[in-house]
Amino acid sequence: MSLITVGTMAFDAIETPFGKTDRIVGGSATYVAYAAINFVKPVQQISIVGFDFPKDEMEELKRRGVQLDGVEIVPGKKSFFWSGRYHEDMNTRDTLITDLNVLADFDPKVPDSYQGAEFLMLGNLMPKLQLSVIKQLVKRPKLIIMDTMNFWMEIAMPDLEEVLKHVDMLMVNDAEARQLTGQFSLVKAAREIMKMGPQFLIIKKGEHGALLFHRDDVFFAPALPLEEVFDPTGAGDTFAGGFIGHLAKSGDISFENMKRAIIVGSAMASFCVEKFGPTRLKEVNKNDIDVRIQQFKDLVSFDIELV
Amino acid sequence: MSLITVGTMAFDAIETPFGKTDRIVGGSATYVAYAAINFVKPVQQISIVGFDFPKDEMEELKRRGVQLDGVEIVPGKKSFFWSGRYHEDMNTRDTLITDLNVLADFDPKVPDSYQGAEFLMLGNLMPKLQLSVIKQLVKRPKLIIMDTMNFWMEIAMPDLEEVLKHVDMLMVNDAEARQLTGQFSLVKAAREIMKMGPQFLIIKKGEHGALLFHRDDVFFAPALPLEEVFDPTGAGDTFAGGFIGHLAKSGDISFENMKRAIIVGSAMASFCVEKFGPTRLKEVNKNDIDVRIQQFKDLVSFDIELV
Repeated sequence: MSLITVGTMAFDAIETPFGKTDRIVGGSATYVAYAAINFVKPVQQISIVGFDFPKDEMEELKRRGVQLDGVEIVPGKKSFFWSGRYHEDMNTRDTLITDLNVLADFDPKVPDSYQGAEFLMLGNLMPKLQLSVIKQLVKRPKLIIMDTMNFWMEIAMPDLEEVLKHVDMLMVNDAEARQLTGQFSLVKAAREIMKMGPQFLIIKKGEHGALLFHRDDVFFAPALPLEEVFDPTGAGDTFAGGFIGHLAKSGDISFENMKRAIIVGSAMASFCVEKFGPTRLKEVNKNDIDVRIQQFKDLVSFDIELV
Repeated sequence: MSLITVGTMAFDAIETPFGKTDRIVGGSATYVAYAAINFVKPVQQISIVGFDFPKDEMEELKRRGVQLDGVEIVPGKKSFFWSGRYHEDMNTRDTLITDLNVLADFDPKVPDSYQGAEFLMLGNLMPKLQLSVIKQLVKRPKLIIMDTMNFWMEIAMPDLEEVLKHVDMLMVNDAEARQLTGQFSLVKAAREIMKMGPQFLIIKKGEHGALLFHRDDVFFAPALPLEEVFDPTGAGDTFAGGFIGHLAKSGDISFENMKRAIIVGSAMASFCVEKFGPTRLKEVNKNDIDVRIQQFKDLVSFDIELV
């Protein structure tokens, strides 16, 4: 089954307690693609880049099975650029620079060749653009997942509420879930969000794992306790890519299969943070992923008899 | 098998975003006892109280199977008093008042009737007192667990290091593990702590669950996502009580059984936070506990085949 991923392709400058990189490829769609392509082909990318986005990165994505017909290349402008610095706890960061560049003109177009895709991952973007993609699809995908951020809650809440009515799952972090609902309790926040449209909700808690909600069911997956989180940039998008990649591979969107997909997403995210940008994601193979998934099983498996 | 628990019995005044109580029974040994007694009898308490500690609380503990021969009652002095205020996130709190009262004179004595106990839970106390209890035991228990806090790392680190050499497990929160080792990564902190003496380590992360370390093995149990955390006071001690209570019940101190014990401890802690002080712990019965443990199984169980 095919998967459309919509989001940014960008350059990032990242500073962590462990090191610094001035310019590395990033962007939500990049991370989603590098994670999902391990499970499903093709991944159909919709994004926008400037003249400066590396040709060899585009070739690398294509070589792996990512289709780029939906990636607009703007000759006279630069690619989106983000720069940030992480604090010691790696859960908080300061944004130093956001140069929208080409992103300011982004008007995603779904190529004809992408029509019929059964899975759609809407990365964090202006809600109007997310809705535009949904509306361009002739046949509604089997599963639509969206990400968003606090910024849109502040400046485009009515648009955001409209998109929420059209998606099956919202995937946000704990702070975003709280801001969206005004509820501190994540259980209460989850209930309110599921009234806004999505039947499924994933709340990402970074190093503290992720929660999946559906009706009265809840599932929790931890993050792998790592010796070092080298660079958390893209971990959330990588998680999303692994998650939807696993679902698209199997075509099964049951709650039970979403549990498995969360483990797969968590495993992919645990690789992502080991090196700067998507570097580590490009290195891992199927065996590495299987070994990591087994570590997750060992981490949470217990056997208790109620007598 | 019998279990000795050493710690405080106290009065607490607690303020949370949900309410306020001026004076409720608390103290680490109280919480440990109310949790552990569901699984093992007798629980043998070592503590100190003043003239003001309620007789009916003592009777309630005895009625449930907690032995109080080791609890010194000081006629002319007041019981230990702690007062604190929780912030909205419930993971941080300000201590408003600490009146040591009788605790300033605490010199724990192990009654002859407690000799031979196979499990020992050393609540957070001056390290010298923890060591004194260990030395008074004629036969070394099968398992010794200790709690501690940052305060002792600051003013009594050499004593703390000495106790650590005599225990099997340290149970601390994430901030304490970091302070004890100077390592931010909990995986690295765990490795260093296990070099200091304890073969086993539990790092409690509050609403984010708990990690169990032993050699190269690691196990993670989440906290139950609750609609409301009403009062987190005593949750860590309740966790400890459920944990060691389960181990003492079975007599099995394997890593596999410790995994189960963590789930039991987490289940007990999830009750503790539902009402002020130990109120909720006194209400729950075996069926409530079994239902809660089943919720934990559902929360983390997944089935993934690597193909």
